Amino acid sequence: MVKIAIDMMGGDDAPEIVLEAVEKAVNDFKDLEIILFGDQTKCTLKHGRVEVRHCTEEITMDDEPVRAIKRKKDSSMARMAEAVKAGEADGCVSAGNTGALMSAGLFIVGRIKGVERPALVLTLPTISGKGFVFMDVGANADAKPEHLLQYAQLGNIYAQKIRGVEQPSVGLLNIGTEAAKGNTLTKKAFSLMDEQNVFNFTGNVEAKGLMDDAADVVVTDGYTGNMILKNLEGVAKAMGKMLKTTLLSSFKNKIAAFVLRKDLNGLMSKMDYAEYGGSVLLGLNGIVVKAHGSSSAKAFYSAIRQAKIAGEQNIVETMRETVGKVNE
Amino acid sequence: MVKIAIDMMGGDDAPEIVLEAVEKAVNDFKDLEIILFGDQTKCTLKHGRVEVRHCTEEITMDDEPVRAIKRKKDSSMARMAEAVKAGEADGCVSAGNTGALMSAGLFIVGRIKGVERPALVLTLPTISGKGFVFMDVGANADAKPEHLLQYAQLGNIYAQKIRGVEQPSVGLLNIGTEAAKGNTLTKKAFSLMDEQNVFNFTGNVEAKGLMDDAADVVVTDGYTGNMILKNLEGVAKAMGKMLKTTLLSSFKNKIAAFVLRKDLNGLMSKMDYAEYGGSVLLGLNGIVVKAHGSSSAKAFYSAIRQAKIAGEQNIVETMRETVGKVNE
Repeated sequence: MVKIAIDMMGGDDAPEIVLEAVEKAVNDFKDLEIILFGDQTKCTLKHGRVEVRHCTEEITMDDEPVRAIKRKKDSSMARMAEAVKAGEADGCVSAGNTGALMSAGLFIVGRIKGVERPALVLTLPTISGKGFVFMDVGANADAKPEHLLQYAQLGNIYAQKIRGVEQPSVGLLNIGTEAAKGNTLTKKAFSLMDEQNVFNFTGNVEAKGLMDDAADVVVTDGYTGNMILKNLEGVAKAMGKMLKTTLLSSFKNKIAAFVLRKDLNGLMSKMDYAEYGGSVLLGLNGIVVKAHGSSSAKAFYSAIRQAKIAGEQNIVETMRETVGKVNE
Repeated sequence: MVKIAIDMMGGDDAPEIVLEAVEKAVNDFKDLEIILFGDQTKCTLKHGRVEVRHCTEEITMDDEPVRAIKRKKDSSMARMAEAVKAGEADGCVSAGNTGALMSAGLFIVGRIKGVERPALVLTLPTISGKGFVFMDVGANADAKPEHLLQYAQLGNIYAQKIRGVEQPSVGLLNIGTEAAKGNTLTKKAFSLMDEQNVFNFTGNVEAKGLMDDAADVVVTDGYTGNMILKNLEGVAKAMGKMLKTTLLSSFKNKIAAFVLRKDLNGLMSKMDYAEYGGSVLLGLNGIVVKAHGSSSAKAFYSAIRQAKIAGEQNIVETMRETVGKVNE
């Protein structure tokens, strides 16, 4: 049995899509228990494996992250994190304020001893459909070479345990493939990764090769990772927009577009990384999954599933034993 | 009359596409003179306003940039840069080794006094077709906040003089729009830009807004700029590939694709920044334009046109008077 704590109040369409996703999850997985944190008067779901715990507070998107977590002790997000810390739940999922969730992870759930900085991890799509583990997508804007090395260690375990890749190839995101390329940070990180033999380092990976299965895990600092993520989002949207304009620009194009509509929608959703589940804050003493703020029930369901697998695979224990011990 | 020095030997398809572009340029612009540097036995072009100067050496893509420029004194690229330094030409264009061209710019043409670091500038496409000036796309991987401020000053002049934007809006590329967002570099650069009144600073610009005309000039460090550029390239290619697969996946799709082929090709070329001309190394005592290595004659022609406009507009003098003086 795996037990997941869930923030019922976080996200644009909460609690509706959260409840829909939870219902589907407990029906699909007979070995899953859920503790729902939030306003119990808004909970329409009744299920033998779903426990509801009433919270009087809520963290909004406008809340200052650290302060919100420190002051709103009875918020659904803070209490969800407390349940993980207390060992009542194996992991937690929220679609709420990202900064606040990171603070809840850091200050409530806590870091694994020896891990200097937790990193936010996401699975991004590739053309082949295989996808890759990308980190850090924004937990720490300023990273040191040693942090990147730890991210690689954490990402390596994540790819093995959650994505089932036996010997993940781990690449360093950089502006050239040669060892001497990059800025001070990536040059030093390259040396550190090149010297170790804990994971399979494949060298530098360029941003243009990301969608061509360049590596199973790609590591970068939180500033660059977040930048790439938003750029992907922007370009995909812009191309979608331009494609739409082209398809509606003439009568003959409209007919062709009608023929293609289903396949083109499938193409666009393939580019939508929200479909690949949530992002996970790695390096903590528990599983913390962030579902996209505008998650559909389907995306939130993927995030729950992700937390469940992470719990089953004892990913935190593995990280504690390997990454934590090595870096202590 | 504007005089441009051109490296006949640089680029994947040199000298053919270079000669084709030069021929079209001198035919189109009656006030343009060209000095061609390269192997004169390979020059098939004869024109009253085209002078050929024979060079015995050539810099290849495998040459180590700084060494090549220092040792291959009779290479087409080094001699082209010497012509700019000597004042014989107003600017120069090459599609050769980027690093070597940057070295030629730095060590032969030289920096404007007061400009700490030159920056590589490119015009990138936006959905509206307007485009924006993006810098630094890779001249300096490690930048300081003061460098970003200077880039903004240089980019502001570039947008005014070359792109004809009267009051360019200048944005700082960052991972959030709020002033407090970013890494140490962007936070400090934000303060510096916010304090000045030389250019119209519009605050932070996110990578997802780049293609929506977020600003006329967007400034970032060379590592991030190069990363974004390669990511754009990668995503555009990946989406093109996926679109192609979709269009060929069934008989009915193939027919629809046939109807759309012209418009879709137009769409893809709109995303191709090579069509927008070359990149310019700003902050030097002369105009140095880098045409894409795999430039078509059309793209090389755009690069020549760009150098010509820069010469006519006395962009170097303006930069010397404003940026150079302010920062001396």
